[in-house]
Amino acid sequence: MKKKINIGMIGTKFMGKAHSHALRDVSMFFDLDVEPVMKTLCGTSPETESIAKKYGWEKWTTDWREVIEDPEIHAIAVLTPGFLHKEMAVAAAEKGKHIICEKPLANSLEDAKEMFEAVQKIGVIHMTNFNYRRVPAVNLAKKLVDEGRLGEIYHFRAVYQQDWVLDADWVWRFDKKQAGSGSMSDKGSHIIDLARFLVGEITEVVADSKIFFKEKAVPGKNETRPVTTDDACMFITRFENGAMGLFETSRISAGHKNFLSFEINGSKGSLIFNLERLNELDIYLKDEDPSAQGFRNIIVTDPLHTYIDKMWPAGHIIGWEHTFIFQYYEFLKGIAENKNPSPSFEDGVKTQAVIEAALKSVSERNWIKVARDL
Amino acid sequence: MKKKINIGMIGTKFMGKAHSHALRDVSMFFDLDVEPVMKTLCGTSPETESIAKKYGWEKWTTDWREVIEDPEIHAIAVLTPGFLHKEMAVAAAEKGKHIICEKPLANSLEDAKEMFEAVQKIGVIHMTNFNYRRVPAVNLAKKLVDEGRLGEIYHFRAVYQQDWVLDADWVWRFDKKQAGSGSMSDKGSHIIDLARFLVGEITEVVADSKIFFKEKAVPGKNETRPVTTDDACMFITRFENGAMGLFETSRISAGHKNFLSFEINGSKGSLIFNLERLNELDIYLKDEDPSAQGFRNIIVTDPLHTYIDKMWPAGHIIGWEHTFIFQYYEFLKGIAENKNPSPSFEDGVKTQAVIEAALKSVSERNWIKVARDL
Amino acid sequence: MKKKINIGMIGTKFMGKAHSHALRDVSMFFDLDVEPVMKTLCGTSPETESIAKKYGWEKWTTDWREVIEDPEIHAIAVLTPGFLHKEMAVAAAEKGKHIICEKPLANSLEDAKEMFEAVQKIGVIHMTNFNYRRVPAVNLAKKLVDEGRLGEIYHFRAVYQQDWVLDADWVWRFDKKQAGSGSMSDKGSHIIDLARFLVGEITEVVADSKIFFKEKAVPGKNETRPVTTDDACMFITRFENGAMGLFETSRISAGHKNFLSFEINGSKGSLIFNLERLNELDIYLKDEDPSAQGFRNIIVTDPLHTYIDKMWPAGHIIGWEHTFIFQYYEFLKGIAENKNPSPSFEDGVKTQAVIEAALKSVSERNWIKVARDL
Amino acid sequence: MKKKINIGMIGTKFMGKAHSHALRDVSMFFDLDVEPVMKTLCGTSPETESIAKKYGWEKWTTDWREVIEDPEIHAIAVLTPGFLHKEMAVAAAEKGKHIICEKPLANSLEDAKEMFEAVQKIGVIHMTNFNYRRVPAVNLAKKLVDEGRLGEIYHFRAVYQQDWVLDADWVWRFDKKQAGSGSMSDKGSHIIDLARFLVGEITEVVADSKIFFKEKAVPGKNETRPVTTDDACMFITRFENGAMGLFETSRISAGHKNFLSFEINGSKGSLIFNLERLNELDIYLKDEDPSAQGFRNIIVTDPLHTYIDKMWPAGHIIGWEHTFIFQYYEFLKGIAENKNPSPSFEDGVKTQAVIEAALKSVSERNWIKVARDL
Repeated sequence: MKKKINIGMIGTKFMGKAHSHALRDVSMFFDLDVEPVMKTLCGTSPETESIAKKYGWEKWTTDWREVIEDPEIHAIAVLTPGFLHKEMAVAAAEKGKHIICEKPLANSLEDAKEMFEAVQKIGVIHMTNFNYRRVPAVNLAKKLVDEGRLGEIYHFRAVYQQDWVLDADWVWRFDKKQAGSGSMSDKGSHIIDLARFLVGEITEVVADSKIFFKEKAVPGKNETRPVTTDDACMFITRFENGAMGLFETSRISAGHKNFLSFEINGSKGSLIFNLERLNELDIYLKDEDPSAQGFRNIIVTDPLHTYIDKMWPAGHIIGWEHTFIFQYYEFLKGIAENKNPSPSFEDGVKTQAVIEAALKSVSERNWIKVARDL
Repeated sequence: MKKKINIGMIGTKFMGKAHSHALRDVSMFFDLDVEPVMKTLCGTSPETESIAKKYGWEKWTTDWREVIEDPEIHAIAVLTPGFLHKEMAVAAAEKGKHIICEKPLANSLEDAKEMFEAVQKIGVIHMTNFNYRRVPAVNLAKKLVDEGRLGEIYHFRAVYQQDWVLDADWVWRFDKKQAGSGSMSDKGSHIIDLARFLVGEITEVVADSKIFFKEKAVPGKNETRPVTTDDACMFITRFENGAMGLFETSRISAGHKNFLSFEINGSKGSLIFNLERLNELDIYLKDEDPSAQGFRNIIVTDPLHTYIDKMWPAGHIIGWEHTFIFQYYEFLKGIAENKNPSPSFEDGVKTQAVIEAALKSVSERNWIKVARDL
Repeated sequence: MKKKINIGMIGTKFMGKAHSHALRDVSMFFDLDVEPVMKTLCGTSPETESIAKKYGWEKWTTDWREVIEDPEIHAIAVLTPGFLHKEMAVAAAEKGKHIICEKPLANSLEDAKEMFEAVQKIGVIHMTNFNYRRVPAVNLAKKLVDEGRLGEIYHFRAVYQQDWVLDADWVWRFDKKQAGSGSMSDKGSHIIDLARFLVGEITEVVADSKIFFKEKAVPGKNETRPVTTDDACMFITRFENGAMGLFETSRISAGHKNFLSFEINGSKGSLIFNLERLNELDIYLKDEDPSAQGFRNIIVTDPLHTYIDKMWPAGHIIGWEHTFIFQYYEFLKGIAENKNPSPSFEDGVKTQAVIEAALKSVSERNWIKVARDL
Repeated sequence: MKKKINIGMIGTKFMGKAHSHALRDVSMFFDLDVEPVMKTLCGTSPETESIAKKYGWEKWTTDWREVIEDPEIHAIAVLTPGFLHKEMAVAAAEKGKHIICEKPLANSLEDAKEMFEAVQKIGVIHMTNFNYRRVPAVNLAKKLVDEGRLGEIYHFRAVYQQDWVLDADWVWRFDKKQAGSGSMSDKGSHIIDLARFLVGEITEVVADSKIFFKEKAVPGKNETRPVTTDDACMFITRFENGAMGLFETSRISAGHKNFLSFEINGSKGSLIFNLERLNELDIYLKDEDPSAQGFRNIIVTDPLHTYIDKMWPAGHIIGWEHTFIFQYYEFLKGIAENKNPSPSFEDGVKTQAVIEAALKSVSERNWIKVARDL
């Protein structure tokens, strides 16, 4: 009989759906030593009950403290806007719950550090949900880099472009107090984490950002509200290992819905990834037959590729949501083996340090060193 | 309280997994007027019990008749090799069960017709699982064709290429008795169904096929067994509406894992689809600004696109398996509304008629008219 | 002092321009042992004089016999509609001129054979201008096939799609008497030649074709004229070496301007080419690291690639017209070394034999063996 | 009788070949009111004579002053390393010659300004050879931007990546004195000019650059020489019109041979270009049918597109070198009409101002304003 891990989840919207789905599916695909139980879903809207039922949760509540204080609950998923993460995560840690928290880990480096300290002190399992580490093609990229197939790394460049702001009405993401920053933290945290995962630590950054849409209409009201978070950011970095980095985040890039793309160039080869074609990886290896060199397009759906032996035969592509299934597999395995998986809260802190340096660089208009004494 | 639909499923391998997953997820994404219940899974292997448990079935058995005769079961999924379909489906129909059956519907036109007659006589809901009709991009293609955006249709061409036979040992798919034919029925049935779905009925066909690998090693034994099913087929067709068709199926096309691609050309435009990038559709419309004409690559993940409002925000791609979820949604809706969805057994029969004509064309080396008096 | 080769050219339109340009440029890029001289251009239009001057010809005429009888002329380019090829080429051969003739070599197999006999009897150098043999990427494909990198060849499939007929008024290409056939000979001759070049001889064919536009408006007149040449053809072939072939030609494929694409699958790999991206070749080789297999996109602009050492540095792409420059290089080298280059008139004849079999297959609605006793 | 324009060209290597070819071809494709004459080629190598003959020049010399002082010469092409541009161009201007000069215009802003003053004082026609302004797809991009099809411009991002430095021995381009800077001026000047052409003036820049290969082997000698020019640069800019810019140049990006790519995002649409597929432009327009929106791939080979009516029919792609033919068409038309074409020396100066600001930003590690009082 497997040990049951009762889960409480705070958040019912887009992320609540993605996380619920992952929990629903994870034990069908993977052999786990524990059995996840979808215990309690917590939301603020009146539909919380019907959502909980639809997604397969046993119970529901609108009071997040109730979930955290429930002695039956072993693990908590924190999926709320960033400004709420710290309070919830620290409270959950103090109650001895394992935690998976959405990214960015917090709205400030200070908050993020406090969260990390809390989980460390109590010794619970903790993850920051940088789910793109779980894309099989990204895993293949990591493997190739780690094996030295690209040689010494020279360049990392990444963009994360969306266009929803162009036609959007006012939402909480436009409010600095709730969201921390705009595309910088929302989109930037993903590509900074990927840079750290694939290349290494970032030491310095210079950045620019801009709010193109100064205000947005409030839906249903005859008024506008000011936008205090950036629409777009560009930043240049230096990595500890000598590589150069180039980053852009934008929520006003017409035609791009969820275009996260990165390229790495090294002394022996290059690779290119694009989230809208997340089953693929393009790689170039210098040591090929010179008359037949080129970027090769790998369809990363072979049983040899990470997680894919649990999925479908080669050529049967997976969807975006599978990254959450894989993340929960790692989280539950971490709980079962009492060994903290990555990306941890520490990863969340380190990414936050880069964001904080970038934001400071924007206001000071200068290169800023990334805080390292975390 | 929603009416429960208890499901029995025969088959536990690749298809058993895909169908089980679809049942597990369908009511999370869709609002149905009935509630599907994963009642009994039936398989032949000793792992049937553990598979049933893992996938979320209440019961399991190794005797398919038991499932069909169980009065609690309302609907049956038939996922076995083709030569078993008829017996199972006819028996299920006679017991008044609704049926979803894997493609090709049968190994012969005669068997397929018998199955269609059985479900018609009893009046149960019936579907042939041509799941690629459920790809949102294919639905968009259908919509554009039906709206006349491509004008009069001139050409349909499709390939379905895989390469697993190149390195495979002997499996049941190489045996004509079990599989009916090779790539012609296994892969061809999918693209013939798409041709019928998107363009219309096929009236005549001329075909060629070949067995390149005459025998294959039997795993674990020091012997080979003859291959009696085709590795590859090519066929030209005429459509009732005057269009010309060109088809190819191959299981020996190196580098193609699951490459189903089709192109349609009409008097006003063209469109191109590729299953390995199933979230995309390329379309060309003649009535554009002449200096800016070109094939546009639509990422078919907008809430406007079929089924997508139930999935994720734009740019968050879905996987191959979602086509099964959407198929079960249609199947269950059909049961709830007592209205037969497509693709039905009739579609299975009509596709079988084309396959039968193509096989006859190969042996007679001549154009063959497709049987129409079904 | 290099020997001068005085050239006479019959044709001033699209092909006259492409061939003139090639002659103008060939000795700038290549080191030849002979010096081509643009002697006389022959056309039927009143602009022939001004065209000749603009393109760099010393003389001009409207009487093609004058060119052929000019004792100063050593070589003739025949660029007229197909029905005129035989008379001109045979006359030129009898006067001892070397000949490069546009494709298809003639409007009938019989005419083509007569032309080949004429050049053989006199012993002049002869070429059929299948210029796509000269694309560096096609040369790389040929090299890979010949080296056995793809192993045994199983499949060849090619399409040649254009869309100009959709909006065209009546032109001579719609008249069977002048053009021989429609897309079959105009477009089909190119892909049949490529099939022969890359895979080998075709032994049997079954084909279908159709005239979708039964008549076309005569420009400037209030009348229409019947169309007697096919808009589109589809044919299946068998190759001498056991490979299967699939071909399509269409001049009514909306969105395709000059889309000649072919794919070859063999036991060890595959390759894909597309004329609209003629600087590229996609190849797949089975013997790669299994976790990093995929189609690689080679930009065929490296000095290692055929002809490219005479062009520009890697990454600086060439245009469609360069294939003509390379063809003239081969033609002039053939003259200089008195060694007949390929594709010769014999290649023109063999391609014509396939076209003739395909046309017969269309009218007899049956498989037709390709004539081999040429 | 057309007026003859006698040309003198200084430079015989890669650029000498590209410019010679353009002169050889320009009057075949275009109707000019003047007749260019390939008068004198000047080079430093012993092969200058044979190169001049091969390329079609009447005379040759190894003394550049001779060309500039030749009273028969009307126009000069300056194709030497950057440090020689000023002396040659100023001398040519003083002799009243029209000048086309390779990019970057000079190795310093000061030199570039001096050159611009010289041509202005005398009143000769002057061009900086930013040939990528002449790509038809870039012209289409310009047209779409100017017509407001993309709306207000938010982002411009460009990379220019090559990889030749990875395996190169020491060449003059590694010497700051001769080359000015590395990838910044050599590659950066092209993308800065395109940014100015398409979006507008750049006002501020922050940059980083790095020399990864500190020294390179001297060919034929048992020694190395230090590298004093950057291998790669990254810079962020602000545009006068409020747009944000992101740039990267690298000569160590494995797999990229001549990959110049840019993307522009505006309030109404986006466009993407890539020099390795220079016949194509991808555009996205927001005001399309919402269910069929996507990036469309325009093959920019229609007679409607700039220069293409002088080339080949739709779908017949042009090569990299055609940009030089088009540039000479503009240069000669400028001379014929006595109207200075763009990109002029002024454009060369303005691009140099951005480079100078970027170089200063690298050394001062700060944002630098681009000099505007030119």
